[in-house]
Amino acid sequence: MNGYFITFEGGEGAGKSTILQEVAAGLVTQGYDVVTTREPGGIKIAEKIRQVILNPEHTEMDARTEALLYAAARRQHLVEKVLPALTNGKIVLCDRFIDSSLAYQGYARGIGIDEIYQINQFAIEGTMPDLTLFFDISPEEGLKRIISNKEREQNRLDLEALSFHEKVQYAYYQLLNRFPERIKKIDAHQAIAEVKQRAYNEIIHYISSN
Amino acid sequence: MNGYFITFEGGEGAGKSTILQEVAAGLVTQGYDVVTTREPGGIKIAEKIRQVILNPEHTEMDARTEALLYAAARRQHLVEKVLPALTNGKIVLCDRFIDSSLAYQGYARGIGIDEIYQINQFAIEGTMPDLTLFFDISPEEGLKRIISNKEREQNRLDLEALSFHEKVQYAYYQLLNRFPERIKKIDAHQAIAEVKQRAYNEIIHYISSN
Ligand SMILES: Nc1ncnc2c1ncn2[C@@H]1O[C@H](COP(=O)(O)OP(=O)(O)OP(=O)(O)O)[C@@H](O)[C@H]1O
Ligand SMILES: Nc1ncnc2c1ncn2[C@@H]1O[C@H](COP(=O)(O)OP(=O)(O)OP(=O)(O)O)[C@@H](O)[C@H]1O
Ligand SMILES: [Mg+2]
Ligand SMILES: [Mg+2]
Repeated sequence: MNGYFITFEGGEGAGKSTILQEVAAGLVTQGYDVVTTREPGGIKIAEKIRQVILNPEHTEMDARTEALLYAAARRQHLVEKVLPALTNGKIVLCDRFIDSSLAYQGYARGIGIDEIYQINQFAIEGTMPDLTLFFDISPEEGLKRIISNKEREQNRLDLEALSFHEKVQYAYYQLLNRFPERIKKIDAHQAIAEVKQRAYNEIIHYISSN
Repeated sequence: MNGYFITFEGGEGAGKSTILQEVAAGLVTQGYDVVTTREPGGIKIAEKIRQVILNPEHTEMDARTEALLYAAARRQHLVEKVLPALTNGKIVLCDRFIDSSLAYQGYARGIGIDEIYQINQFAIEGTMPDLTLFFDISPEEGLKRIISNKEREQNRLDLEALSFHEKVQYAYYQLLNRFPERIKKIDAHQAIAEVKQRAYNEIIHYISSN
């Protein structure tokens, strides 16, 4: 594998999707070959799985069923989209990946980070991100940004109590401790231009030294 | 949990489904409270997952994606149907369960029994069958039975090469060695009445001594 697999992580409204697009544009301008994606990423089977997960009629869905479905969708997206791009030497920027499952299902939903890690390892077979940018924002601020963003539809997770988002945040801090080499924290309270610059610099630094 | 969780395993055409119904009828006649099931067992979410797995358009489905989807469907069927029945003290007779995944995905498809065991443990959280009846038949004989059964539609697996079914058979023998307490082998070459009697006796023996 010759490309670089870079994931964008953090709580709701941290700016992941916004910054990802900005950074991608910057990299393309500099001549890099970039693929931007997020699960399920237009992969037919992964989309079908996602429909089962998100179907609002499925209120009886067990948390472990959901975690296995996320892992299944991740697998298919990885195999069909991420791995071929990496093999072709591209920089793959992916909006959320394994750390989101660890933080949301593993910690905030209470299944356990280690157990979620294990089934995700089954899914990804060691294809961990080369670099992960963690956009660090206080849950209050993140939720404020989302509410003031009229274009974005609210989803089920946005409506969780603040305490849920605090758990997610706490889980990301645990992951930072666990994977200090891979995960770089970026203060996401700053203005978009500054956050973008920090993210861009981290990526350039990583790819020039690896 | 006060009930008994009993699973029926073996290759195609071994007689699992036939014997399960016969044994259930026998147990009911003796006054036992019996639930017969098989995955996805009419559980809405499990049926939806099954549709994704079995959709003939999904030729690009990766083997690990499939294994995770089976585990997800198993989880939901267990939570919604098996566990409540066990809590109510019933004898649950289930047509195929974890050992089928170990034999088919784990061994015959080459993912590895240990890895499939692990994701299934995530799904079942220790609810292993109390007793498993393994219907032992030569793959040739099993396939002959299926072909001569005009009522039964052939599915994708029936059409696999004989060597695939031999792998499945070999995997079941490995599982017998691995779980000698739990799995009881029953010679399935005999006539239906005799196979039924052996299966029935194993169950009665188990529930009278546990
Ligand atoms: N640094 C920033 N300062 C102010 N507003 C920002 C900043 N970054 C993003 N925003 C705005 O906050 C809102 C949420 O941003 P965005 O959708 O990128 O967050 P996200 O992390 O992708 O959220 P989600 O997890 O919900 O997908 C958008 O309206 C975006 O324009
Ligand atoms: N002991 C037996 N002797 C002869 N025929 C049998 C015996 N047991 C089952 N059969 C017949 O073999 C065919 C396959 O049986 P059955 O469907 O019960 O197998 P199965 O193990 O459930 O197969 P599958 O794995 O495909 O579901 C049926 O036509 C059934 O009537
Ligand atoms: Mg986003
Ligand atoms: Mg059958």
